[in-house]
Amino acid sequence: MADESLFDFLHMEIVSHIYREQQSSKEEMDNKDRAVCVSVLESMGFRVGQGLIERLTRDSPSFKDELDVMKFVCKDFWTKVFKRQIDNLRTNHQGTYVLQDNTFSLLTQLSNGKQYLDQAPKYLAFSCGIVRGALSNLGLDSVVTAEVSVMPSCKFQVVVQKL
Amino acid sequence: MADESLFDFLHMEIVSHIYREQQSSKEEMDNKDRAVCVSVLESMGFRVGQGLIERLTRDSPSFKDELDVMKFVCKDFWTKVFKRQIDNLRTNHQGTYVLQDNTFSLLTQLSNGKQYLDQAPKYLAFSCGIVRGALSNLGLDSVVTAEVSVMPSCKFQVVVQKL
Repeated sequence: MADESLFDFLHMEIVSHIYREQQSSKEEMDNKDRAVCVSVLESMGFRVGQGLIERLTRDSPSFKDELDVMKFVCKDFWTKVFKRQIDNLRTNHQGTYVLQDNTFSLLTQLSNGKQYLDQAPKYLAFSCGIVRGALSNLGLDSVVTAEVSVMPSCKFQVVVQKL
Repeated sequence: MADESLFDFLHMEIVSHIYREQQSSKEEMDNKDRAVCVSVLESMGFRVGQGLIERLTRDSPSFKDELDVMKFVCKDFWTKVFKRQIDNLRTNHQGTYVLQDNTFSLLTQLSNGKQYLDQAPKYLAFSCGIVRGALSNLGLDSVVTAEVSVMPSCKFQVVVQKL
């Protein structure tokens, strides 16, 4: 119980700290300010994701292909970080993957429905970074975005960048 | 394993983010800058500690006195947050408590000895805040400081403020 909460509470604090410091000198935040916050959170997540996957894969056999990597992220990695597996993984077999988590742990405390939907992106940037960092250390450059239509369900889209 | 690492990595990221943003405009940080960083981290910890203790004590019976509260913090709370119990609790029975943790979890990754000792305060501010926040929600106003002589061992001093 408190293991998750520790991370959850700390995550909340960081989000609010970063938004507060960006807003400090202004009346209201514009889109550019919001983009700065998202980017700061995303790169924190990136480094955390890199660190985590390094430990997690220490004793794992190597992966046979991209899909194999994605499956590992959806099962083992997701379970360690977000306490459950991804509910649904889809791909177009051309490097785009959609990972759906119906009860995303960082949103469950926030809301259950459509209220506060506009606040959701704040709480997803860090997680997008975690996924991108993990994939990066497994050899996949990617762009990761998240989308919420009803909380606490969340879809992460991963687009693997081909060289 | 990764449960702890998630928090550990995130904690590292926050510490470096806060120090980086404070330093961004200057050549070198002075004591005042360092105090600002410590205070930001401490108040983040404070709010996290408040949240955690609220959940942890939901089903606990009430405490009979101050020492009883401190024992709860040293055992149950410490185990949940830092994965082990406090090794030694001392008090002068006048509101001052010294909590010694011989293998403090946020320092074990950092060093094992006297090297990097000057870096230790960075990584303790958040934890001091956590303790102060927890005590505050249990009705005790306090001042919490930390001291390291050899890593990863750490002493937290709690001075309860009498009204």
